[in-house]
This record gives sequence, C-alpha cells and structure tokens, in this order.
Amino acid sequence: MPSISDKVIGRLSLYQRLLYRLKAEGMTNVYSHQLASLSRGSAAQVRRDIMAIGYSGTPAHGYVIDELIKSLSDFLENPAGQKAALVGIGNLGRAILAYFSGRRPRLSITAAFDTDPNRVNRVIHGCRSYPVENMVEIIREKGIDIGIICVPAGQAQQVANSMGLAGVKGILNFAPVRLQLPDDIYVEDLDVTTALQKVAYFARRESTKNKEVKK
Amino acid sequence: MPSISDKVIGRLSLYQRLLYRLKAEGMTNVYSHQLASLSRGSAAQVRRDIMAIGYSGTPAHGYVIDELIKSLSDFLENPAGQKAALVGIGNLGRAILAYFSGRRPRLSITAAFDTDPNRVNRVIHGCRSYPVENMVEIIREKGIDIGIICVPAGQAQQVANSMGLAGVKGILNFAPVRLQLPDDIYVEDLDVTTALQKVAYFARRESTKNKEVKK
Repeated sequence: MPSISDKVIGRLSLYQRLLYRLKAEGMTNVYSHQLASLSRGSAAQVRRDIMAIGYSGTPAHGYVIDELIKSLSDFLENPAGQKAALVGIGNLGRAILAYFSGRRPRLSITAAFDTDPNRVNRVIHGCRSYPVENMVEIIREKGIDIGIICVPAGQAQQVANSMGLAGVKGILNFAPVRLQLPDDIYVEDLDVTTALQKVAYFARRESTKNKEVKK
Repeated sequence: MPSISDKVIGRLSLYQRLLYRLKAEGMTNVYSHQLASLSRGSAAQVRRDIMAIGYSGTPAHGYVIDELIKSLSDFLENPAGQKAALVGIGNLGRAILAYFSGRRPRLSITAAFDTDPNRVNRVIHGCRSYPVENMVEIIREKGIDIGIICVPAGQAQQVANSMGLAGVKGILNFAPVRLQLPDDIYVEDLDVTTALQKVAYFARRESTKNKEVKK
C-alpha cells in the first residue's frame, strides 16, 4: 500500500468518528458530500481519501455506513490490538487515562508511570501505574509501541529518550517542547497552551476589528 | 501591524515558553540558532518570526532573554487580561481547569458550564461553575471572548452556536467535530483521539518496517 500522509490519516480518523455518530442517529448510508460538509472538506477529497483505503461507494446510494466503518477500522487500527504507555500522572495524565479508559478495545493504555511514589503501584481509571524507573523494562515486556508524554517540559526529552530505547515507535506529546528523536519514531505534538494562546490572540484581533468597524 | 499567520503565532508561543525555561536555568542571553534547535526550526525562521513582533537581537549577544520575553508577552497577551469560558466539566474539562488554574494571570478561565446539576454552582480548581442555560448571559456579563469546548461530539455545535451568539471570538475545540461558524470566529481544534490514532497508525508502520528489515 502506498504511503499515506498524516493529514489523510487525521481525516480518515475523523470520518470514522462521524460515521459512528451517523450510525447512532439511525442512518445506514451516507454520501461523500454529506461527509464533506460534516468534516469541512470537499466531496472530491472525501472520495479520494476513502478510495485510498480501497473502499468505494456508489453514486446512487453513497457509502454503506457499516461497511465503511469496518474498512476504516481495519485500516486505522491493528486487529490484534495495540498498547500505549502514559508517563506523567498529573491532572492531564489522569484525564487522558479517564478519557480512553475502555473506549477503544483495539488501542489501550496498558501502563502509566510517574516519579511520585504516591501515584504509583495503583490502578488509575483501569490502568496500572508503576515507578518511572521500571518504564523501559515494562514497555519491552508488554510489547508497547506507543508512548504518551504528560510530564512537564523539562522532563519530556528524557522520557522520550527512554521510550525510544524501549522500542516505542510513536509518541503523543503533550509537553510544550519539540522532541529530538530518531526519524523512525513518529511524534505528534498536542500543545494545549499554545493552542489556547493562538485562540486568545485571534479572538482579541477579531474583537478589536469589530470595535473599529463600529466606530 | 501586518496580519500574522497562526503558524507564526504558534511558534512565538513556543519561543516564549522555551525562554521561560532558559531563564529558569540561569541564562540571560540566547542566540537564534539555539532557539531554532530547541524549537526544531531554522535560525533564519526564528529571526524572521521575532523581527515580525518588532524586536531584534545583536549578532554579538543574541537576544536578551528578559527583553524578548517581555516583547513576546506584550504581543501574545492582552495586558488588560483576557477571559475564557469552558463548557463540559467532565474529565477533560476538569484537567483543563486544573492545568490553567492560576497559571497565566493575563488569561484566565473565568466560568465553567455543564448540564449536570451535580457539577454546577461550585468552585472547581478555582473556577466557578454554572448551569449551561446561563451561558450566554454570563459570557456577556463578564466580557468573555474565548470559549473552550470539552463536551461530547454531538453537543459541540450547539455549544459553539451559543458561544458565538454571546460574542465569543475564539474557540478551542476538544470535541471531534468540525464546527460550522461565522468567519470572524477563530477555531482551533485539538482532537486527542485523532492524534492518538495517527500515532498508533505510524507506530505500527514503523514496527512492521523494522521487522521487514530484520527478515
């Protein structure tokens, strides 16, 4: 299969969630222009993205929602399941554990780590927690290939290094730093503070613009 | 001042945080190539970004960290303060409240809303919570111009509509939907599930690639 960009993967993941919603609302079929409208893309892009995973609808009936969900799941998820480790069980770490707890059978957070003795050797939102010293060993033992970093900025690179050493191949990074890692490790940054600062900046500009218009 | 793209704003926000860290480590000056290395950009890009906010360093001593932090704060933040409202006080909403609690004096989450009677009329991580029915009124009263959406996908559009009606000009959206809103409202999507699915997909590809190489 040809290599697919991370933007396309992001859109396929969004379609999958939109389809679950439409199915829950009782729909059985959906047209590309409907998915396009819900995902703020074009119908041509939706068709291209879905063609890339080897599924296609018909002009008369569009996509069969159940079939398309199955195709997307087979493509996006590992049927054998995939395991993630989370490091940093502060407020954000706990929220992530709670959020994903039991939600995706094919992708589970199997171990959590922290330096704080009060946070380890417990079960938090269904996930067992361990001292961070045991991280490399436990990631290897459990065959975990995904890491989730929820530690403060100053500790993130060191945690990422240990994850790489342990064999992790993909990292979801919530710490506001750019990690330096080998090319074969995929990193996705989710920087909540930067996102909020961007929103604040543009909100302010729009508010000012409106005031100027009103003058 | 000319319009600045959201990518540049994102980088400026990152520089600001990196500079706070360097300052905490005892540094007083920093060169563009050092900021470039920490932010995984080029030195030319760093210099261009910082020039855009009207500050410049010297070839001999680079940037004075204290001065650059001040320039960035003046540019990115409203000295008079800016207020945000959060809707959806579930696990993620609580984590966001805890995360930003007292952290940024110039940007505070001033009100939180939920439909669940057990979650409202309380103080959660320093923020007062209200029934969602009062949202439009309270956002207007308090002069809030930023909204943070932490509700499930099915409720997000309705919450966004109310926010727009109340005068919010920027939205940080954690719900996995693409919101349909007027052009004068800036939306930043932070989709945790999609991010994790992307990481899982690419981690799996890398793991497979390595196995193939080893064969």
